Amino acid sequence: MSELAQADPVPAGPGFDQGAAYVRGQFVPIEEATVPVLDVGFSRSDVTYDVVAVWEGAFFRLHDHLERFERSCRELRLMLEHDRDGIASILMELVRLTGLRAAYVETLCTRGIDRAGVRDPRTFENQFIAYAIPYVWLLKPGDGDTGMDAVIARTVRRIPSASVDPTVKNFHWGDLTRGLYEAYDRGAHYPILLDYEGNVTEGAGYNVFAFVDGRLLTPSSGALEGITRRTILELAGREGIPAEAAPLPEETFRAATELFATSTAGGVMPIVSLDGQPVGDGGPGPITVRLRELYWQAHEDPRYITPVDYSS
Amino acid sequence: MSELAQADPVPAGPGFDQGAAYVRGQFVPIEEATVPVLDVGFSRSDVTYDVVAVWEGAFFRLHDHLERFERSCRELRLMLEHDRDGIASILMELVRLTGLRAAYVETLCTRGIDRAGVRDPRTFENQFIAYAIPYVWLLKPGDGDTGMDAVIARTVRRIPSASVDPTVKNFHWGDLTRGLYEAYDRGAHYPILLDYEGNVTEGAGYNVFAFVDGRLLTPSSGALEGITRRTILELAGREGIPAEAAPLPEETFRAATELFATSTAGGVMPIVSLDGQPVGDGGPGPITVRLRELYWQAHEDPRYITPVDYSS
Repeated sequence: MSELAQADPVPAGPGFDQGAAYVRGQFVPIEEATVPVLDVGFSRSDVTYDVVAVWEGAFFRLHDHLERFERSCRELRLMLEHDRDGIASILMELVRLTGLRAAYVETLCTRGIDRAGVRDPRTFENQFIAYAIPYVWLLKPGDGDTGMDAVIARTVRRIPSASVDPTVKNFHWGDLTRGLYEAYDRGAHYPILLDYEGNVTEGAGYNVFAFVDGRLLTPSSGALEGITRRTILELAGREGIPAEAAPLPEETFRAATELFATSTAGGVMPIVSLDGQPVGDGGPGPITVRLRELYWQAHEDPRYITPVDYSS
Repeated sequence: MSELAQADPVPAGPGFDQGAAYVRGQFVPIEEATVPVLDVGFSRSDVTYDVVAVWEGAFFRLHDHLERFERSCRELRLMLEHDRDGIASILMELVRLTGLRAAYVETLCTRGIDRAGVRDPRTFENQFIAYAIPYVWLLKPGDGDTGMDAVIARTVRRIPSASVDPTVKNFHWGDLTRGLYEAYDRGAHYPILLDYEGNVTEGAGYNVFAFVDGRLLTPSSGALEGITRRTILELAGREGIPAEAAPLPEETFRAATELFATSTAGGVMPIVSLDGQPVGDGGPGPITVRLRELYWQAHEDPRYITPVDYSS
């Protein structure tokens, strides 16, 4: 499938071969995309974002991503200067500039810079930013059959929802970064964090699913409500696989015969080991493989896709 | 005191009248100080920082701040490219460029930009940044006698230490920003957050102290170990005021006859109302006023200060 996505390459505009960004109202090469050190989007992580993929020259679930992005902004009381069509046009132009047939496209809104001495966050001028870069794989396509080596983090717990709402996409990754270090230090690559009640939440940029006793489960709280996660719940439903969001205790997760992770950056990714022990028979399970097929097939479904116009 | 700090102004270098920054190895006007959108210091809030004040032409407790900054970097496994003397020299030069006699000086270290597709945070090239801007007052000096109107946040709890360590200075302010919105929405300005056990932690950029039953208490966990907080504990000790870091339940805090906040950005700041009710008699209490005097006197103590050389 990655071959197809790279087919018929469209040449990038001058300077845009590494990616393109929209910052302070201008289209610039990705290398020039910066945030002021004094923007509280950096200095207080007061920012939200979303990521939508372009695959085979079309956005996947663009309006679902933009709807979630708008909701995130509302929850944080960030004002977007563009409406949904305006943002969609900017994203189209970004992808067109890069010529990418498979892209990772991010929208952001930062609180902005305080006027000297005025801390009232209601008075800041919020800043919209977007960029498009080559598609990002959390799990390299060549690793698709070996899959993810995951660990349940022992040294850190996921930030609780009553402190930072994980359904509003945010950059509060201190816990996930600690988990990432722990995973690498333990010879693995993919941390999964528990909440303070011992339930599974999510990983460093991915939701998780467990197939246990004939049911497909994904955590109902403490995690991002991912669009890929939503797609998998929909596809499983159509396929007749019982699937639901529910609390997912660590013991239940460990009892699963199949585990996988989902993300816009990679789709459906089998988890083949957990804390060094094989999951199931140590390879991608049949439910996982079937849902991964359906997931990529959905990228040809007109209900889900918005083609990019590459003509200038 | 603010008059003194502004005495004998030194002219700023060209372009540095709003502040100066050190970014990517260069000294630039503060307006040009930026972080790449792709630096995980922004996009994962994978960064630490510290703030030291310059007062009357001298750094206050410079080496204590740099020691804490180095410790924060170690805890996050960030590599500093400069040693302590090297950083001190850069900060001196920044203040010299601005000509400021009273400055807010920040040091930062970000994780940096991942090399395409390599998520291992151990492999990133970490980035040192610093800047100097005019001194920041959390509580305006003219408000020193009226003091802070604080609220205990009802809608949000402080991120727990087992998720993000508050003693490692960080930009995970989502909870504090929610608190700030709540405070403003309730007609006040200064939120104070509780932890999940109902103990007081800290505010949006300040530690808190309560004078209760003849003892001065400040939270022993869930908060930054502020240098101003440390200074106050030391000064109270010398003054014969029983003072200690201890768990501080909400009820104990509410029973205090005096409350104040501390920060490098403003020193000792009386809290004169809590949730709309006066604290004590509704003005700065005698212990608070005495400690504030001692705090500013300490800015003349050669053990604490490092004069800036403004000659070029």
